[in-house]
Amino acid sequence: MAGFTHLFIPGPTNIPEQVRQAMNLPMEDMRAASFPELTLPLFEDIKKVFKNETGRVFIYPSSGTGAWEAAMTNVLSPGDRVLMSRFGQFSHLWVDMAERLGFEVDVIDCEWGTGVPLDLYAERLKADKAHRIKAVFCTQNETATGVTSDVAGCRAVLDAANHPALLFVDGVSSIGSIDFRQEEWGVDCAVSGSQKGFMLPAGLGFLSVSKKALVASRVASHRRCFFSFEDMIRANDAGYFPYTPATQLLRGLRASLDLIAEEGLDNIFVRHHRLAEGVRKAVDAWGLKLCAKAPKWHSDTVSAILVPEGIDSGDVVKRAYGTYQTSLGGGLNKVMGKVFRIGHLGWLNEVMVLASLSAAELALLDCGVKLAPGSGVGAAIAHFRRSPQSAIAEAA
Amino acid sequence: MAGFTHLFIPGPTNIPEQVRQAMNLPMEDMRAASFPELTLPLFEDIKKVFKNETGRVFIYPSSGTGAWEAAMTNVLSPGDRVLMSRFGQFSHLWVDMAERLGFEVDVIDCEWGTGVPLDLYAERLKADKAHRIKAVFCTQNETATGVTSDVAGCRAVLDAANHPALLFVDGVSSIGSIDFRQEEWGVDCAVSGSQKGFMLPAGLGFLSVSKKALVASRVASHRRCFFSFEDMIRANDAGYFPYTPATQLLRGLRASLDLIAEEGLDNIFVRHHRLAEGVRKAVDAWGLKLCAKAPKWHSDTVSAILVPEGIDSGDVVKRAYGTYQTSLGGGLNKVMGKVFRIGHLGWLNEVMVLASLSAAELALLDCGVKLAPGSGVGAAIAHFRRSPQSAIAEAA
Amino acid sequence: MAGFTHLFIPGPTNIPEQVRQAMNLPMEDMRAASFPELTLPLFEDIKKVFKNETGRVFIYPSSGTGAWEAAMTNVLSPGDRVLMSRFGQFSHLWVDMAERLGFEVDVIDCEWGTGVPLDLYAERLKADKAHRIKAVFCTQNETATGVTSDVAGCRAVLDAANHPALLFVDGVSSIGSIDFRQEEWGVDCAVSGSQKGFMLPAGLGFLSVSKKALVASRVASHRRCFFSFEDMIRANDAGYFPYTPATQLLRGLRASLDLIAEEGLDNIFVRHHRLAEGVRKAVDAWGLKLCAKAPKWHSDTVSAILVPEGIDSGDVVKRAYGTYQTSLGGGLNKVMGKVFRIGHLGWLNEVMVLASLSAAELALLDCGVKLAPGSGVGAAIAHFRRSPQSAIAEAA
Amino acid sequence: MAGFTHLFIPGPTNIPEQVRQAMNLPMEDMRAASFPELTLPLFEDIKKVFKNETGRVFIYPSSGTGAWEAAMTNVLSPGDRVLMSRFGQFSHLWVDMAERLGFEVDVIDCEWGTGVPLDLYAERLKADKAHRIKAVFCTQNETATGVTSDVAGCRAVLDAANHPALLFVDGVSSIGSIDFRQEEWGVDCAVSGSQKGFMLPAGLGFLSVSKKALVASRVASHRRCFFSFEDMIRANDAGYFPYTPATQLLRGLRASLDLIAEEGLDNIFVRHHRLAEGVRKAVDAWGLKLCAKAPKWHSDTVSAILVPEGIDSGDVVKRAYGTYQTSLGGGLNKVMGKVFRIGHLGWLNEVMVLASLSAAELALLDCGVKLAPGSGVGAAIAHFRRSPQSAIAEAA
Repeated sequence: MAGFTHLFIPGPTNIPEQVRQAMNLPMEDMRAASFPELTLPLFEDIKKVFKNETGRVFIYPSSGTGAWEAAMTNVLSPGDRVLMSRFGQFSHLWVDMAERLGFEVDVIDCEWGTGVPLDLYAERLKADKAHRIKAVFCTQNETATGVTSDVAGCRAVLDAANHPALLFVDGVSSIGSIDFRQEEWGVDCAVSGSQKGFMLPAGLGFLSVSKKALVASRVASHRRCFFSFEDMIRANDAGYFPYTPATQLLRGLRASLDLIAEEGLDNIFVRHHRLAEGVRKAVDAWGLKLCAKAPKWHSDTVSAILVPEGIDSGDVVKRAYGTYQTSLGGGLNKVMGKVFRIGHLGWLNEVMVLASLSAAELALLDCGVKLAPGSGVGAAIAHFRRSPQSAIAEAA
Repeated sequence: MAGFTHLFIPGPTNIPEQVRQAMNLPMEDMRAASFPELTLPLFEDIKKVFKNETGRVFIYPSSGTGAWEAAMTNVLSPGDRVLMSRFGQFSHLWVDMAERLGFEVDVIDCEWGTGVPLDLYAERLKADKAHRIKAVFCTQNETATGVTSDVAGCRAVLDAANHPALLFVDGVSSIGSIDFRQEEWGVDCAVSGSQKGFMLPAGLGFLSVSKKALVASRVASHRRCFFSFEDMIRANDAGYFPYTPATQLLRGLRASLDLIAEEGLDNIFVRHHRLAEGVRKAVDAWGLKLCAKAPKWHSDTVSAILVPEGIDSGDVVKRAYGTYQTSLGGGLNKVMGKVFRIGHLGWLNEVMVLASLSAAELALLDCGVKLAPGSGVGAAIAHFRRSPQSAIAEAA
Repeated sequence: MAGFTHLFIPGPTNIPEQVRQAMNLPMEDMRAASFPELTLPLFEDIKKVFKNETGRVFIYPSSGTGAWEAAMTNVLSPGDRVLMSRFGQFSHLWVDMAERLGFEVDVIDCEWGTGVPLDLYAERLKADKAHRIKAVFCTQNETATGVTSDVAGCRAVLDAANHPALLFVDGVSSIGSIDFRQEEWGVDCAVSGSQKGFMLPAGLGFLSVSKKALVASRVASHRRCFFSFEDMIRANDAGYFPYTPATQLLRGLRASLDLIAEEGLDNIFVRHHRLAEGVRKAVDAWGLKLCAKAPKWHSDTVSAILVPEGIDSGDVVKRAYGTYQTSLGGGLNKVMGKVFRIGHLGWLNEVMVLASLSAAELALLDCGVKLAPGSGVGAAIAHFRRSPQSAIAEAA
Repeated sequence: MAGFTHLFIPGPTNIPEQVRQAMNLPMEDMRAASFPELTLPLFEDIKKVFKNETGRVFIYPSSGTGAWEAAMTNVLSPGDRVLMSRFGQFSHLWVDMAERLGFEVDVIDCEWGTGVPLDLYAERLKADKAHRIKAVFCTQNETATGVTSDVAGCRAVLDAANHPALLFVDGVSSIGSIDFRQEEWGVDCAVSGSQKGFMLPAGLGFLSVSKKALVASRVASHRRCFFSFEDMIRANDAGYFPYTPATQLLRGLRASLDLIAEEGLDNIFVRHHRLAEGVRKAVDAWGLKLCAKAPKWHSDTVSAILVPEGIDSGDVVKRAYGTYQTSLGGGLNKVMGKVFRIGHLGWLNEVMVLASLSAAELALLDCGVKLAPGSGVGAAIAHFRRSPQSAIAEAA
């Protein structure tokens, strides 16, 4: 088929040309004397994206899922009690992993379309006088439902309960795109991956840890080797890795961190909000609803959109892909058939978002949804013309 | 700035991923024993795009302009009388070249927005009993105004006049995208370039010539060396070139010819017409007019759109580029400030066209043009849902 | 510095141009309807490289180390007794992993420069009447010392003892380059990685398992999630993955498997042997010795070369890299300072090997080693002219 | 076939990884407002390579041959008398072009293996009291025979004769690799191409002209359009081109000019001399002779090597390519069958040169030439260890 295949899933995201160029390279010696000239600044600069000042970041050749496992197996011990909540496919998988890895999981099931229940977390933590809960988990951005939770709020309820539990955050589809402040919010383990806000191919899992988490890992007894902090620390401190790193992705990471620094995190967050609002205006104009139950849950990186009764959202996704060369996200698990998703994160601009809305309109119409052609695109255009393009413009 | 820069000028066009991959390669020996395995099939397959059965195609490391010069200097002699028409920047430049290269040019100036004046050509040819006119020139697609002329009609008036003049066609922005039949229409020199329908970077000029033109070149006395047919023929016949060819582009050409063969010329023409119609529906919906004066002149590869009085089309182009990362074409020469152009040719699909229309809407609105946001996109969407995607579907 | 950096380490290896082109691509949707058209044939074709007919291959976004961990944690249970041998840095690390993951390791320490001690394995297995040993481990190619062990011999001693233990093979730096026959040799878990014989960047770990290993995994109780067979099987059977796969590397894998099929495994093995013999002839000509103690241990993918007393092999490696832009391998652990290594595997030909020998000569001379300039290169040239380039030629 | 194809022809040369990355990009708008940010510095920086201070450089989408034609047709008029010398295929082709373009050529034929005959030039110029000679031509580096001529000497004989003729230099295979000083030596037209010292793919012709040449062009009456200075000047002054430029190559040129600036021209010349000397030491060690008749003609960018009587040099080239994946240059015209050529220019280092010598040894031996395997490589190694790697080192 002719023309670009348009990618609007919530990860992998579109890789910048600069990253693509940087990854078009021959292999190199990961034990070369000059290799730390690449890696040591990477470790420093990736910390800035997490706003991690006093801890460190591990870069695993894996995925976000691998970094989840790295966090749990290094910092916790089998049988440890953890507090989690489940309101979408990815929070569900995290709970599932915790159970399979042998933790005692206190899981709170919430309605899909809502996020971390701060009030219930507060109750549980206050009730836990013995401090049996070792860690509290927060999915900052539930990719399946387009719901953003309140990480600062998690910190607040921990503090209010004067509870020493560690705070784990899944920021795979938020960090680098939505405000995240590891140091300020006292996050102990923050997980991300290469293929979302970091604008790289899949293949790297990032785990940003606090000093407190590093201390905890020294006594944590879960078995680990591939993901072991200590092997990583020993090698990373010298600029190397305990096993062959994905050098091609590290070269790409250098380029993406440079782009992030150049644009500035604040501008990136403003851009993501602006683009996401455009999508939400389009959804309104179509007469459709988001899966997210209230504005406070609206995600600036992905929108899960409910299709009308009688329509299968899977058909919309298939039509967009098969006929209009556009990848949209489908509904997973409980919302299968009910939502389709537009990923609007990473290396993205207004015209790309308008292209995603155009494709969605074509596919929705073809699947029998009643909407006025151009209505969603028009609403987004109207929004873009009114909203600022950068943090500086916004402040003005 | 984040996100792709969107390219909707009438060339260079967007290069297919397969072409981009094919051109990502080390240099190679253009005198290697195996080099003709690449080149000989290229010469054959590019002839198919021109529908040139009995002549040959020259591939120059130059541009379309270079191929214009190659055609004139090889086939004509200084002082030869030629019949040309001028109705846009590119037909103007061709006339200018003919004059500077020493031909006696009988130029017919037509209103910009119209094309080759077949009736006037017929008159001139009938009047030329002495057959002093050695060649008749036809710009198949005037890129500056979005006007397609009738090449078959040119052949018809030549035949009706029983006139032996050669027929030269500028197909730079049409061949490979709009129906062209060199053999059937008796075209003697057909010029094209790499960066339009051939979906490659700029850097190659193509000149497809008839047997009659080859015969004429043997006696034509214009001085030439770089563009000389005879040097090319001697080397090409063995699969080589008289000087170092642009091997990277030749590898890309292999990939693009494969894509053209895979999709099929008929399907490509249907796709271009469908996409162009979408653009024209959008222009209607915006309440704007094309530069092309009548539907028979409508180009399926580029639309030149008149902006309302009081608006400078240059501002629209600047706004689209500077604020929305989208390259549109500006107005050239007589239509500077009056038209902006959307290129809709090459490796293109519906969602790309809708992106171009979205960008145009944003820029037009920002420049003060009154239109309903989404109106153009919506009209194009409605059109796309009604029109067939391929020649087979159209026939059905 | 000008010119290519020459890469002759035992992995990552030089990636073929076809692979590099295939990986130069935009991101794609790993849940697209057409994605299994890529993945399902990959699973089939990678099995052919392992000569695994009745089992299956897992592709992890990790490294060879990750695939080691996947093998152990899926097929064995904590406390299981395993028989291992240690004679180099990589067999050492495998033992270390087994111990840290909680297995009871019966480790036989051998002299570095030798390989798996079949006689001692035979003794241990015969003595183990109770069949407490659940798995026997064999490092087919010890990358640190350039030693190849006898996998078929391991199978033979297991059979001779009529012992039901599983057979685990580390083939990271051998599979795809040196003869390996999973089905015929009854190997239950064969580990490899993307960055050696598979000629890809680092980033994928491959684990090829027998039916017997799959059955064993169903009752094995080690905790696992990221590396879990069951999640992989469920997703892989439909052509998908349980978490975002490294699609860029999968596209590269398609290209590399095509190259492997085109050349043919038998030809690849002949080529590796021929090139390795060239290196060994050069070592002889230099008056130096291999770390491998006897011809039966000689590796066809990497040569570890002992430097004379008084010379630090680390200086040779630094000199080659810093002055001659050539990456050679250094000595690890016990042989640090004593050996340097030339990797001669993957996408390699005679002239590349001669380049590696030239660089080694320059660096050795600069570091004070006495040798006649050109002597090693000359010996290799003489060998290449006498030895066949392909399996067919060899048979003739 | 496995492994890199080794390229040691005198152009196209090996492109640096940085250039390859820079050229891996989507198409762009050559009329964009920001385009001059790319082009204007290019024009400035390329002048530095020519050491042209007061003139200007034209960048044509063509080849070196095109730039030859551009020089002649812009600066001279038909019938103008020019003084040329012929001593190899490329000086021959330049003479041929001059004749075909209508100049009155006074050609001095010299033995192949020698260069510009300064004494004869001096005679002719002194004898030309009427100053009928309008231009003197000097092939700085005859690529076919590996002969470098004395450009400063040409200037000296012109000055000695107090002759106002323009000085034309073909520096296609020398500029950027061998010392060249346009301003100091009073060169009026210096021709080069992208695919040699500029380390780019073929596709650009460079023509660097003096003020005097620009003045001459205003009255020169040869017909030209594609190569016309005036069209170029008008567009270039604003940062644009009169027709679509090869933007991909311009992006590559940016990268290559950066590399040249980073290394420094003086270091580049030292490197080329050092590498060339290595090749010449090898030729001596093989017992073979260069085509160049004396050391003063030795080219630092290409060596043409005479094969012994009874050997066809074409077989050596074929063998190197077909069996050892190495491209060497063949003999052209009068030296066909008698010489093979090693190109040693551009992005090159010691180990690459040693690889070229290794390949040559293999091919020469296979073709029956008697030489000691490793002898040439060894001689080059010995040379490299004694000679300085940079201008600074040399000065020390």
